[in-house]
Amino acid sequence: MTAMPGTKFALGIDFGTESGRVMLVRADNGEEVAWSLVPYPHGVIDRALPDGTPLKADSALQDPRDYLVVLDQGVPEALRKSGVSPADVIGVGIDFTACTMLPALAGGAPLCTLPQYTANPHSWVKLWKHHAAQPQANRINELGARRGEEFLTIYGGKYSSEWFFSKLLETLEEAPEIYAAAERFLEGADWIVWQMTGRESRNECTAGYKGMWIKGRGFPSRDFFRALDPRLENVVAEKLSSAFLPLGAKAGGLTEAMAARMGLVPGAPVAAGNVDAHAGVPACGVTEPGRLAMIMGTSICHMLLGRERQIVEGMCGVVEDGIVPGYWGYEAGQSAVGDIYAWFFRVFDADPTAVTGKAARLQPGESGLLSLDWWNGNRSILVDADLSGVILGLTLATRPEEIYRALVESTAFGTRVIIDAFEQKGIPTRDIVACGGLAEKSPLVMQIFADVTGRQIRLPRSLQASGLGAAMHGAVAAGYYKDIAEAAGHMAGLQDRCYQPDPAAHAVYNQLYQEYRTLHDYFGRGANPVLKRLRAIRHK
Amino acid sequence: MTAMPGTKFALGIDFGTESGRVMLVRADNGEEVAWSLVPYPHGVIDRALPDGTPLKADSALQDPRDYLVVLDQGVPEALRKSGVSPADVIGVGIDFTACTMLPALAGGAPLCTLPQYTANPHSWVKLWKHHAAQPQANRINELGARRGEEFLTIYGGKYSSEWFFSKLLETLEEAPEIYAAAERFLEGADWIVWQMTGRESRNECTAGYKGMWIKGRGFPSRDFFRALDPRLENVVAEKLSSAFLPLGAKAGGLTEAMAARMGLVPGAPVAAGNVDAHAGVPACGVTEPGRLAMIMGTSICHMLLGRERQIVEGMCGVVEDGIVPGYWGYEAGQSAVGDIYAWFFRVFDADPTAVTGKAARLQPGESGLLSLDWWNGNRSILVDADLSGVILGLTLATRPEEIYRALVESTAFGTRVIIDAFEQKGIPTRDIVACGGLAEKSPLVMQIFADVTGRQIRLPRSLQASGLGAAMHGAVAAGYYKDIAEAAGHMAGLQDRCYQPDPAAHAVYNQLYQEYRTLHDYFGRGANPVLKRLRAIRHK
Repeated sequence: MTAMPGTKFALGIDFGTESGRVMLVRADNGEEVAWSLVPYPHGVIDRALPDGTPLKADSALQDPRDYLVVLDQGVPEALRKSGVSPADVIGVGIDFTACTMLPALAGGAPLCTLPQYTANPHSWVKLWKHHAAQPQANRINELGARRGEEFLTIYGGKYSSEWFFSKLLETLEEAPEIYAAAERFLEGADWIVWQMTGRESRNECTAGYKGMWIKGRGFPSRDFFRALDPRLENVVAEKLSSAFLPLGAKAGGLTEAMAARMGLVPGAPVAAGNVDAHAGVPACGVTEPGRLAMIMGTSICHMLLGRERQIVEGMCGVVEDGIVPGYWGYEAGQSAVGDIYAWFFRVFDADPTAVTGKAARLQPGESGLLSLDWWNGNRSILVDADLSGVILGLTLATRPEEIYRALVESTAFGTRVIIDAFEQKGIPTRDIVACGGLAEKSPLVMQIFADVTGRQIRLPRSLQASGLGAAMHGAVAAGYYKDIAEAAGHMAGLQDRCYQPDPAAHAVYNQLYQEYRTLHDYFGRGANPVLKRLRAIRHK
Repeated sequence: MTAMPGTKFALGIDFGTESGRVMLVRADNGEEVAWSLVPYPHGVIDRALPDGTPLKADSALQDPRDYLVVLDQGVPEALRKSGVSPADVIGVGIDFTACTMLPALAGGAPLCTLPQYTANPHSWVKLWKHHAAQPQANRINELGARRGEEFLTIYGGKYSSEWFFSKLLETLEEAPEIYAAAERFLEGADWIVWQMTGRESRNECTAGYKGMWIKGRGFPSRDFFRALDPRLENVVAEKLSSAFLPLGAKAGGLTEAMAARMGLVPGAPVAAGNVDAHAGVPACGVTEPGRLAMIMGTSICHMLLGRERQIVEGMCGVVEDGIVPGYWGYEAGQSAVGDIYAWFFRVFDADPTAVTGKAARLQPGESGLLSLDWWNGNRSILVDADLSGVILGLTLATRPEEIYRALVESTAFGTRVIIDAFEQKGIPTRDIVACGGLAEKSPLVMQIFADVTGRQIRLPRSLQASGLGAAMHGAVAAGYYKDIAEAAGHMAGLQDRCYQPDPAAHAVYNQLYQEYRTLHDYFGRGANPVLKRLRAIRHK
């Protein structure tokens, strides 16, 4: 603790997939002073409920009480480690996985905590990666397309099985008694803010990116929901409506009871909820158009700001004020990146350090290989989960490190396709800020991304961009900064480390990228749907 | 030795790449009674001549005296092992790698054995895999195409750098003094028969498949050769012409001297020379149209008989009486097969037994993978060395054994393309006889080839089809049989082992084969020349 007396602090709480992480940072400069990690006692519930009730395939549930354990244990621990006085914590912000939703009573009690519902899987939290609602998503997409619903356009033409109404419809169809008993369906992000403040609200970010909600227009019409299922006609009025809060807004003050549990001061401002990836964007110093934020791990989430709304092919979503108020927030993504590298090292039984070293010594184009990075389908811009990976150019002399490098290059080409799609619509990427595990640990990957995209790539100072972003929103909600841009100006910063594109490498990659684009369109846009037919033959 | 008194024997001598193999078989039933193997003392000369003279890249030479060592040591050894009396050896046949050619004096002395030429690499035997004459082959192909030369049509449109006039032209251009001194250029097959019989001759098989010679029409015109190089105008008259012998013809009797060296009886009939692969065909029981002979190893050589001459896309050659007199002999091939499997096991560092076991338990189509087997380019039917391999359908769940099986399937699809090209021209494949290392040792590979082609595959009784074929031709030359078909009826036979196509597997492979064909044409016929461009980028 080096802070002077009078220094103020903000608390960011990052609710992840397996655990919650509490970060205490200085409000004036964003410096991290303490953190704590609390694994969820029930983790991801994907085989059976705690009472032994088995779950169907592709289920991924959580116990909402685990989120409270993060508050009960993680916040006091971080305070204790830091020696910071509770009175100096000016505000609290949270970020959450999404769509991670649950049914509750009007008072906030999750249905799964009530004895009469606890044995029903649909009463529990459906985690973002609960993938059992694909049939429902398909019907939503068919109906939405037939009716020309606007929400489809903001999602790049496809509403995901991971999202709010896919999961809600699954509950209605498979557990109508849970649907009937639910007085509210809401995001975990909003539920935990409600628990802290005693006031129900919804944040515009999650509602916009996951919940068909469009600012100024609200949800789709009763007509649409009735067409989807007559029982859904009044779902918005009966189970969803409440205040919608912009990011950085104060959702309320900590209740007496929660302040006591968390070891904070009653009434401390709590910011509206936020999605983990989106909260990280201002923490990467991205508060204006022109800079692409990439969260790079098993997959990549791409986020950009625009001055106006454009329909960009294959984007995951465009939401007004959805990332930084005042701009349209665009999200796109690649469904597998680090996962592809991990696949390589697994199937080739290869030593990552040795292979990476050899791959780094290869010149662009030297291997003669080219790959399409569709090992887990294509999210942006084709939005097609049935595509699969391709490698071309193999010879008897091809070595494993050449294949590894070609896979890395292919993921960089995938990002360039996304950048190009946005630029075509006048949403530029001047440079890139990357965070996440790959950005921190894989210099070769980062250099290839810089060389392929022709853009400088920098890294944020904080390795925990989402948690820092949550704390920044807490500081804004507390009125310490007037808005998130001002907060970013003080609390966010970039590392000196910087990946500069090499012009010679970029020139070779431009050639390879043309080949990639041709194959991308050939295999991905219907000229030769062999990849989909292979999958169909496989599943016969 | 179980033969009754009066039993007669034939000798087959198989001149391979690294060694010669002598086989002594019963003339009445082809049963092998003794064999011997003699490695060439100088092996393949590919870095420096015995005197230390360094060789340029892609050279592969031999010392013709090594072939005599096989006769001197191998024949007496086989006789000794068998206890057979020299008087009971009714005839000798040989087969040889091809095109394996050398310059000699009119008396038969190889130029490399003369002191004034021995330090010049062009005076030595150029082995089939001497690959230094590609520029010459390119010029032959350009000129041949411009002039519409017939020889190009019998070679499927492309004359190989491995063949006779490519190598001869290389000698002319790089060592005109060797060209001038050479009174003969001839195949090793013809040279060794000349040594045994004392009479110069050429066999129609090698001349037809490698030497631009067409039965009834001879070599290309003086005009063609003058256009290729003015010094070549009279090459045929001056350095090539001599008797052309059909397969199974008696080239002569053993000279006194050679009979003494080999431990045989002077005057014993010696058959005209033959190419190793082609000699194996009747030994596989293939003496009529309808049955495809496949020699399966690192690559595959496909041979078929037809009743008439057809121009089949991408065939390696069609020669009248070139395999079995009375039929047109067709040859096609895949440039890498076992080599691709070996590549897989090397780069995946995988245990062949374990992977093969797992691959055998997969169902056709189950992996969702499809591959183009062009790791070493494509010989038939595209005749394009610049193509390269492709794998499609990769996912995060793809396992090594799935990739291995997809590679095996791709090589079987490659064979099916060849079968289809012949069937389109009315040259059917009713069933298949396969020999070589893969046929003997890889039941999974053989079953997949049966399932993909929809043809029964059988194996010859003798594992040494080429040597047995040579002995069979020796028996014909001796007049023991009237022709090779009669010889095959007695001396050749098939194993009981048989791979039957599984109808269900064949049905799935029919679907995958359609996908393979579409991609084959897309990548191989110019619609998207990405594979060639990748190679071009690589070599910049």
